[in-house]
Amino acid sequence: MAIPNRLQNTAKGMLNRARRLGLPVQGAERLGERLEPLAIKHLSRYVIPFVRRSGVHVNELEPGRVVCTMPLKGNVNHIGTMYAGALFTLAEFPGGPLMLATFGMKRFIPIVTALDLEFVKAAKTDVSVELTLTPDEAKRIEAETLAHGQAEFELRGELKDANGEVVARSRALYQMRPRRR
Amino acid sequence: MAIPNRLQNTAKGMLNRARRLGLPVQGAERLGERLEPLAIKHLSRYVIPFVRRSGVHVNELEPGRVVCTMPLKGNVNHIGTMYAGALFTLAEFPGGPLMLATFGMKRFIPIVTALDLEFVKAAKTDVSVELTLTPDEAKRIEAETLAHGQAEFELRGELKDANGEVVARSRALYQMRPRRR
Repeated sequence: MAIPNRLQNTAKGMLNRARRLGLPVQGAERLGERLEPLAIKHLSRYVIPFVRRSGVHVNELEPGRVVCTMPLKGNVNHIGTMYAGALFTLAEFPGGPLMLATFGMKRFIPIVTALDLEFVKAAKTDVSVELTLTPDEAKRIEAETLAHGQAEFELRGELKDANGEVVARSRALYQMRPRRR
Repeated sequence: MAIPNRLQNTAKGMLNRARRLGLPVQGAERLGERLEPLAIKHLSRYVIPFVRRSGVHVNELEPGRVVCTMPLKGNVNHIGTMYAGALFTLAEFPGGPLMLATFGMKRFIPIVTALDLEFVKAAKTDVSVELTLTPDEAKRIEAETLAHGQAEFELRGELKDANGEVVARSRALYQMRPRRR
């Protein structure tokens, strides 16, 4: 899970510094809110070195939906197809940006409790995955987490090669918890 | 799966060169057989760049048994514990060296068809895993692959931190096939 705490802290630090300098920060705060999704999209992969090294990329991000791509280059196995661990990272990592974009950065912490991967065929190109969370499911997760201190949910993904063929299927189980104040 | 085809080819190339030069290669061939397990142990992780980048290490390797360790350093997530993808690589990669050490490098190709990971607790130290294959199970896999052209089997692992506590459990499904001549 890539929750850019460091990004958030960096942004907070910049705002605090601006306040100490007596600068008008209200505009900056509003700007920060507008830049947050953009920051998540472009910077979340830098938060976990293992993820950054893989070269995975967030293509599209909005509340309830994320699309990521793992390059074949640098991620081949001994027979030149995509290494299973790169497929795992592609299945796991996007859940972080998706939940940040859906629930915001401040209220909840998602914890991955299991991830099952089925390898369908060898991947000989870059591989992409789209993960979605319906508004109803997002509302249920939010309500249960607030009411009971936790909520369980799953994300299923189809990992597809450049020709649209499924190379792997993933099922990730998560537990959502409130962020400690 | 880390099957060091390149290592094997390098060794073959060296022997062929020695033959062309008129050197006595029988000793080298015997030496090669003795060095093979050592080469697998020390070099298999270099075959897959993704695996090499993770820093995973083969500690012990013999027919039917492998022990590997994933360093925490370089593999932390956003909260400083081991990233799920590093745990996946630790669960998946050792199967390659194990099968090479058990069945040799020339006859079979194992293909991972699924890998399920359960995350039990956050890993705050290096993490190790031991995978084993009993002699009876190895014999069954060998006999079925030779008789039917394929055999299914599974490897289960407990990933443990430096205090011996289980941080994750893995279940990998494999299909063994004869290597094409």
